[in-house]
Amino acid sequence: MRNGVMRPGHVQIRVLDMEEALEHYRDLMGLIEVERDNQGRVYLKAWTEVDKFSVVLREADKPGMDHMAFKVLNNEVLEQLEAELVAYGCEVEQIPEGELSGCGRRVRFVAPTGHNFDLFAEKEQTGKWGISSVNPEAWPRGLKGMKASRFDHCLLYGPNIEETYVLFRDVLGFELAEQVVDPEGGRVAVFLTVGMKAHDVAFIDCPEPNKFHHASFFLETWEAVLRAADLISMTNTSIDIGPTRHGLTHGQTIYFFDPSGNRNEVFCGGDYHYPDHEPITWKAEDLGKAIFYHDRVLNERFLSVLT
Amino acid sequence: MRNGVMRPGHVQIRVLDMEEALEHYRDLMGLIEVERDNQGRVYLKAWTEVDKFSVVLREADKPGMDHMAFKVLNNEVLEQLEAELVAYGCEVEQIPEGELSGCGRRVRFVAPTGHNFDLFAEKEQTGKWGISSVNPEAWPRGLKGMKASRFDHCLLYGPNIEETYVLFRDVLGFELAEQVVDPEGGRVAVFLTVGMKAHDVAFIDCPEPNKFHHASFFLETWEAVLRAADLISMTNTSIDIGPTRHGLTHGQTIYFFDPSGNRNEVFCGGDYHYPDHEPITWKAEDLGKAIFYHDRVLNERFLSVLT
Amino acid sequence: MRNGVMRPGHVQIRVLDMEEALEHYRDLMGLIEVERDNQGRVYLKAWTEVDKFSVVLREADKPGMDHMAFKVLNNEVLEQLEAELVAYGCEVEQIPEGELSGCGRRVRFVAPTGHNFDLFAEKEQTGKWGISSVNPEAWPRGLKGMKASRFDHCLLYGPNIEETYVLFRDVLGFELAEQVVDPEGGRVAVFLTVGMKAHDVAFIDCPEPNKFHHASFFLETWEAVLRAADLISMTNTSIDIGPTRHGLTHGQTIYFFDPSGNRNEVFCGGDYHYPDHEPITWKAEDLGKAIFYHDRVLNERFLSVLT
Amino acid sequence: MRNGVMRPGHVQIRVLDMEEALEHYRDLMGLIEVERDNQGRVYLKAWTEVDKFSVVLREADKPGMDHMAFKVLNNEVLEQLEAELVAYGCEVEQIPEGELSGCGRRVRFVAPTGHNFDLFAEKEQTGKWGISSVNPEAWPRGLKGMKASRFDHCLLYGPNIEETYVLFRDVLGFELAEQVVDPEGGRVAVFLTVGMKAHDVAFIDCPEPNKFHHASFFLETWEAVLRAADLISMTNTSIDIGPTRHGLTHGQTIYFFDPSGNRNEVFCGGDYHYPDHEPITWKAEDLGKAIFYHDRVLNERFLSVLT
Repeated sequence: MRNGVMRPGHVQIRVLDMEEALEHYRDLMGLIEVERDNQGRVYLKAWTEVDKFSVVLREADKPGMDHMAFKVLNNEVLEQLEAELVAYGCEVEQIPEGELSGCGRRVRFVAPTGHNFDLFAEKEQTGKWGISSVNPEAWPRGLKGMKASRFDHCLLYGPNIEETYVLFRDVLGFELAEQVVDPEGGRVAVFLTVGMKAHDVAFIDCPEPNKFHHASFFLETWEAVLRAADLISMTNTSIDIGPTRHGLTHGQTIYFFDPSGNRNEVFCGGDYHYPDHEPITWKAEDLGKAIFYHDRVLNERFLSVLT
Repeated sequence: MRNGVMRPGHVQIRVLDMEEALEHYRDLMGLIEVERDNQGRVYLKAWTEVDKFSVVLREADKPGMDHMAFKVLNNEVLEQLEAELVAYGCEVEQIPEGELSGCGRRVRFVAPTGHNFDLFAEKEQTGKWGISSVNPEAWPRGLKGMKASRFDHCLLYGPNIEETYVLFRDVLGFELAEQVVDPEGGRVAVFLTVGMKAHDVAFIDCPEPNKFHHASFFLETWEAVLRAADLISMTNTSIDIGPTRHGLTHGQTIYFFDPSGNRNEVFCGGDYHYPDHEPITWKAEDLGKAIFYHDRVLNERFLSVLT
Repeated sequence: MRNGVMRPGHVQIRVLDMEEALEHYRDLMGLIEVERDNQGRVYLKAWTEVDKFSVVLREADKPGMDHMAFKVLNNEVLEQLEAELVAYGCEVEQIPEGELSGCGRRVRFVAPTGHNFDLFAEKEQTGKWGISSVNPEAWPRGLKGMKASRFDHCLLYGPNIEETYVLFRDVLGFELAEQVVDPEGGRVAVFLTVGMKAHDVAFIDCPEPNKFHHASFFLETWEAVLRAADLISMTNTSIDIGPTRHGLTHGQTIYFFDPSGNRNEVFCGGDYHYPDHEPITWKAEDLGKAIFYHDRVLNERFLSVLT
Repeated sequence: MRNGVMRPGHVQIRVLDMEEALEHYRDLMGLIEVERDNQGRVYLKAWTEVDKFSVVLREADKPGMDHMAFKVLNNEVLEQLEAELVAYGCEVEQIPEGELSGCGRRVRFVAPTGHNFDLFAEKEQTGKWGISSVNPEAWPRGLKGMKASRFDHCLLYGPNIEETYVLFRDVLGFELAEQVVDPEGGRVAVFLTVGMKAHDVAFIDCPEPNKFHHASFFLETWEAVLRAADLISMTNTSIDIGPTRHGLTHGQTIYFFDPSGNRNEVFCGGDYHYPDHEPITWKAEDLGKAIFYHDRVLNERFLSVLT
């Protein structure tokens, strides 16, 4: 958190049919529906999160990610980062307070990969769901489905990932936790963090800009990953791969698709990062093992199915 | 255990290179090497087993299963079953005491699927490995690799599975725990048990006789399955599929191959069976989900890669 | 299952207040309420059980166990065992079909420890709860609380445990899986099984007859034991000890009390047994470790709090 | 990490007999011995740590903690913090580079609780043990015993915890993740963090200064906690309590003692923290549940057995 960026705050995802999407994100994944706004967008949160929401679903004609937002420490930091983005040469867009219900003003920039990123300092804090802040129980009763515990990160595809990495590092204070490097030494994937997590956002090189690979949610245990896989099968949800382990970050994972074709991940575990850790390097020629540690080959969907 | 057959006693597997096979079965899977006989066969056991051995490896030109053996209650039962096999029309072969070191005489018959099955009543009892029978600790220190805890069952491919099922049921007292039934009502797979386990042996219909699909070993937990998968990757062992869950029996599993191409399974969990349980039925048209519960499709290897 | 006794069929437990008891057994432990009879008794089952019920609660002035019942293979076995009990010198009592709704006639005898045991051959089969017998899913959605998966065994205290063991062994075909032996070689505890489980019923020596130590229910995993412990705390349920492991059987366990003071256990794991396994012996002087493997001392409640 | 303090770097513990201590910390807990210095001190590390060591054992006449050290971002930060400590009124002591082998110069201050704390910016980086930084496997083979994965935190007892909290907050940038508050609103325990962990150091109010409650090490899973408990029993190691869950932080834990009487913890799980999280509050009158979530009562050792 060198420059005051704290964590992923939320992701806004486009879905083709809101009711089907809610069966998926709320009833299957276990996110909690907290509000619908006058544009018809639905806000959800995971139970361990103290802020009001971390996922916004917007009905649209095509799936994908509208934007990913990071929460910063306070308004001074937000102003500072805005100035630095501008100084760095980014165009920034102002999103007024209240555009998302309960969220303060956001500063938006477009990364060189083509994705929209927002920074914000304030969001209504409603506390962990179903748990008191005094003598809190270990977990709330009444969670549904996979009981996802937090929105963790996004993996995004686009061009110019080196420039994007430098921008995130130099302006926003992200650190390079892991990378995939081709034989010529060029980075083809970067896993970036502002905290102790193995990644808060990751980018994979791809000629087409602004593509969405997946939004990822944290589960407590490998057994929870198994039960998530069982639920995927019971609900006839489209699975991509898993349960398995990633080589990158060593997290234990499943990929699957929402009814609109957006990929989701639930995972547990994963390495931790500190600022003095050298980046972990995976060789591009071993990308199969880097992504799917057990199978050691990519399924063709991993590189081609994007929204 | 209606007719005195207790459990799978051992399996004799052909391997192309003994030292490579031992790196696999002993160092990777964690079976304990107990003896080499004057034919060069190597005997291994899993740590929870009280008998001297449960796996015999024999170096040969082609992989596959020589025979699978069941332990019966005592010599009276062995004689009774021998007489009933003959009365049923089976040719039986006598394998003398000591042909396998520490094992009493075996009565061999060939099932209609073409596989050799042996019955025996006596095997040297060496007790659980590394654990006293007085005040026993929870588990022994010094286990290797996957720490397989017992030889559990075999899955075999061949013709005439209905006749084989009837023979195992009527003569040996096996029960049908689970079955796969085609749209005309014919059984294409039978999972047979003599105890509370979901299967002690299973057969899948296949025109070619005497084919070996896999020998399976029990692990304690889903976390042990994950670590087994990790070890498969670390040792560059050929993986087939997993970690995943089966629909049939609901066990949690990985399939992989020994260096000779024989398939192995390690798994945990799985349903229990009692004699008054109706067989569980899976529809042949849903065979994908029956075998691989999460992916819900068979990989092509499942039906074609046999030894 | 040498003599045709299959498994524990049910236990009838006395409770002081039925509604409080149901909050405990149904809402906390996750048993499914299946019927109330015209005596006001409430029938419950665990989800993996195929029979209609496995627990009967009866409101009474003092807590404890009315009887424990075993299911036998069929009516011929029931008649045979009845005759053998009589020949052995036991008085047997006839409990007519329908005394418990859906249960066939029961043959009751009083063990030398003073406990009532019933044998029965028939009980209405309603199948696993929430799961089809064709293409069954891995587990049903909608389970409550601890999601107990089966009634597993009872531990009972009383005098004459040697005579009781001999009766259970010689007439009913139970095997001695584990025992606690005093320095003179006398058995002070016996763990008896008719299947592969480490125990279907267990007895500990105690001068007072017909005392109930606990009824035990199976959970799938050590993580389920943790969540059970969490629920015990969240619901202010009286805990006895755990999570921990037993030395005897090596199961992983918690003991706690129902609102009437009857002790319950939920546990997972545990050793398996076959008829050719020598009994496991624990020394009475190491009873602390035998019962509570981690603490290696008994809490005073273990020997004194009985119903 | 508001002020540049990254994490707990190491703890130096006094032990009565070095060889016994090594059997405990190295063979039982699974720390890796990395060096012995000319004072006879032994250096150990946990396998996921990139720095050379995280535990130093020193043979002495009485057990306890010599000092706990935090690693800061770099030498500029170290100088800045040193100046701020002095400005705050702390006496600081210089510990020269090399006093601990491989560790840069340390700045020592005594907290109002009486404990020695060191800050340092540089320590030899030897990388994760047994794992490459290129294409790293999921975990190293050859770990011993509990396979502790990192030194996590210390819990210390002493007076003036409010002053200590303010010093750690205002000068070192720690945040208050959790607290125990008495009925008058006074803090009797503070759990402080500089990252996402629930605590990097914690203090409990106690009249006697400079007392050591425990040093804690992280395990990956609840199953690892079970196996740690098993090993404690197998090695006749003195156990304090567990396996259980804490209310505070919700980690899953065991407490036990080294041969010198110093308490250790191994644990998994636990809540995460961000700077905008309000502190979690436990009421002092519910301290039993706050510490031991399942039993809901303190054992007397928790408040009285200190070194």
